[in-house]
Amino acid sequence: MSKRIIVIGSGAAGMTAASTAKARNPAAEVTVFTEDEDIAYSPCAIPWGIEGRTGWDDIVMHTPGFYEKERGIKVFTRTKVESVDDAAKTVAAGGKTYPYDSLVIATGGKVFVPPVPGADLENVFIVRTVSDGKRIQKALEGVSEVVVGGAGVIGLELAVSLKAMGKDVTVIEMMDQVIPRIADKDMADVIQRHLEEKGIKFVMKAPVQSVNGDVKVSSVTAAGKEYPCGVMIFATGIRANLEIPKALGLDVGQLGGLVVSPTLQPYRRGRLVPDVYVAGDLVQCESAVMPGATMSQLGSTAVKQGRVAGQNAAGCPKALFGPVASPWVSVIGDKQIAGTGLSTGLAVWYGVNVAEGKAEGLTRARYYPGGKELIVKVLADKATHRIIGAQIIAGEEATGRIDWMTSAIVSGMTAEEFLVRAENAYCPPTSMVRDPVFEAVEEACKKLGQ
Amino acid sequence: MSKRIIVIGSGAAGMTAASTAKARNPAAEVTVFTEDEDIAYSPCAIPWGIEGRTGWDDIVMHTPGFYEKERGIKVFTRTKVESVDDAAKTVAAGGKTYPYDSLVIATGGKVFVPPVPGADLENVFIVRTVSDGKRIQKALEGVSEVVVGGAGVIGLELAVSLKAMGKDVTVIEMMDQVIPRIADKDMADVIQRHLEEKGIKFVMKAPVQSVNGDVKVSSVTAAGKEYPCGVMIFATGIRANLEIPKALGLDVGQLGGLVVSPTLQPYRRGRLVPDVYVAGDLVQCESAVMPGATMSQLGSTAVKQGRVAGQNAAGCPKALFGPVASPWVSVIGDKQIAGTGLSTGLAVWYGVNVAEGKAEGLTRARYYPGGKELIVKVLADKATHRIIGAQIIAGEEATGRIDWMTSAIVSGMTAEEFLVRAENAYCPPTSMVRDPVFEAVEEACKKLGQ
Repeated sequence: MSKRIIVIGSGAAGMTAASTAKARNPAAEVTVFTEDEDIAYSPCAIPWGIEGRTGWDDIVMHTPGFYEKERGIKVFTRTKVESVDDAAKTVAAGGKTYPYDSLVIATGGKVFVPPVPGADLENVFIVRTVSDGKRIQKALEGVSEVVVGGAGVIGLELAVSLKAMGKDVTVIEMMDQVIPRIADKDMADVIQRHLEEKGIKFVMKAPVQSVNGDVKVSSVTAAGKEYPCGVMIFATGIRANLEIPKALGLDVGQLGGLVVSPTLQPYRRGRLVPDVYVAGDLVQCESAVMPGATMSQLGSTAVKQGRVAGQNAAGCPKALFGPVASPWVSVIGDKQIAGTGLSTGLAVWYGVNVAEGKAEGLTRARYYPGGKELIVKVLADKATHRIIGAQIIAGEEATGRIDWMTSAIVSGMTAEEFLVRAENAYCPPTSMVRDPVFEAVEEACKKLGQ
Repeated sequence: MSKRIIVIGSGAAGMTAASTAKARNPAAEVTVFTEDEDIAYSPCAIPWGIEGRTGWDDIVMHTPGFYEKERGIKVFTRTKVESVDDAAKTVAAGGKTYPYDSLVIATGGKVFVPPVPGADLENVFIVRTVSDGKRIQKALEGVSEVVVGGAGVIGLELAVSLKAMGKDVTVIEMMDQVIPRIADKDMADVIQRHLEEKGIKFVMKAPVQSVNGDVKVSSVTAAGKEYPCGVMIFATGIRANLEIPKALGLDVGQLGGLVVSPTLQPYRRGRLVPDVYVAGDLVQCESAVMPGATMSQLGSTAVKQGRVAGQNAAGCPKALFGPVASPWVSVIGDKQIAGTGLSTGLAVWYGVNVAEGKAEGLTRARYYPGGKELIVKVLADKATHRIIGAQIIAGEEATGRIDWMTSAIVSGMTAEEFLVRAENAYCPPTSMVRDPVFEAVEEACKKLGQ
């Protein structure tokens, strides 16, 4: 009998797991259940969808019909999985019971909304699904003032899109910097200033206290002051969606994600759960930088995990998911900001003493037209001299540089080794002859020598 | 007494060595001798200088006056070093004798011009110095047909610039592909087709037999056919400029470059020559990919070597120059092509059995506007499974990706390890959620498994 594989969740992790399982085991019966209306899209694209820079139909790469016809995968949308019985190996959904041989749980994350009064008013939104995006787009019609709660990358991308739509935008952030946790304050401040120059307002160190209004939101109160708005959007970060895992009694780690084996199987009271795999925002990962756990709630990580979970669910030779450095990049206005490994804040959390190196330069040879600003920051561990993190702000080409630094980090290169062993390709229209990355590492080396 | 440091050569290696030596040892007397009129410029920029996209004064980053005033370095331009006496530790130049404590030889490379009749006619040029560029620019006035000899990256960049100036351009190449040696034919053919679409003509597998004309060139004969032209430019590759090293009896390696220690000191009959350092296009390097020698005649390598030679010449704690993978990138028309490590041709030369993986994708998420073509080719060693080379063609962002692959190569990652350990940053406007690099590596893995 052909293998029956059920996937719960239709995001990057779930759809990748489903497609991988079917590709590796074409005889398998692969079924996906999702509460969402749309599948196989990137939540990262929603700010641009709201702005209209990309069409909603473009963001959604494939329809359920496509999966059924082209890939032989059955997708049930708007279908909540009511329960999973991993002893009987069945899933209950839409009033029916479906048996499985392998199960992939890829239910992703939920936007964390702070428990403040008024968060349930009309025109108060989170931004996670295409449906959220469409609702926000509609609500914005005729509205001039918008408050964004949270200055993480999605919040900032959203603020830029809203500003481009002609709105008066105020971003309210609890911490003293934008992109908290993953970016250092000095780098984050460059982005904040850039957005302030575009007319976006920031209220920092100000947790949202209440959302005010009768039926619809009319203002938001933060740090004792009131900010009028016709729409309020929470972009306050993602928490693992653990409804099904908790019902199954799966082990949750110290960072609030599921503890998994390198094969992406979950544990229950310390024992691997057979024939169950997990992938995506609900997984707690191993850090490639420090011994210990980390959360890596990124689309790129979800796809990587989806491939491993899908291959293992298909009964192929075991695939392994490795530790992560979690490189990320965001385009915010005219600047790209990217990071990898630990920020200074995270390093302190891990108990690491950090040597910082920072350098500025251009993305092209100084004389070549069109070169853009490039700021590189590199962090090294004072004890081991290993490079443990990097952040880049650039007008272009930040992504490749951060992937380059990621490769150096996961290879365990020290700052000194990097100077000897790393090389950069050079051509006047695409780079400086010595990339500023080297200057930042050299700066860090000097501080390591002190 | 302060240390006297003499540098011969004013290219990327020489000027970097001089600046590094002075920065590390501010009391040192640093003197540079060069035959060139201009110093501290990138020969890679000359095609764009000829086209007028960048001004000649922009390309030349600093004048001798700048070095003297701002950095305290004395530069003698248009000054040939007649001889070096490394026993007496003196350099003879311009009729005078200069004593040194440390000497850096950075005399670079010479354009190899094939020994064909007529190569000395008027309006026949090489392209190496700013003076060459200015002469070519002047000679091109009123000329409609130009022949470029050699389809390496400089030849192709030149062809694009000449075409943009409205010239009728024919490129004559001895081999059966453009960018021979460092690019694979399938990748090179994409670039050739792109240039053919722009109207540039190619004559392949055709060594130049003669340059014809009375006083000025009027045509070039290759593979028995005659190609009329008013200007002919040789871009036929670089050979180490060994005039001074040969006079000193320094050891030359099997690839025609100087054999050096990791401190960049040359050898004479197997013994290190004290207080002499070399840097730039005349150095034979160690390969970071295979055990053995390699030539790395790149501006980025020259700068890296210049820093090591300069620091060591200054008498600082020894700096080391490591093995190289030699990443390179070139912007040719609307495409960027980049490579690192071995090409298939070079791998065969090293006796390696290659597994190839190739993938196509885009530089941005499929739905995000402005995404450009991305072709990735990865080579792995069938015996060790190590990644030994990569080539990328992309409309944008090739450089960072090739630096990323370089880092993986010099870390000794196998193709299988890369799939587990490498990660890519993702954001719809800058990348696909799973970079095509991974697909190419996965393709290679499949072939390694066969």
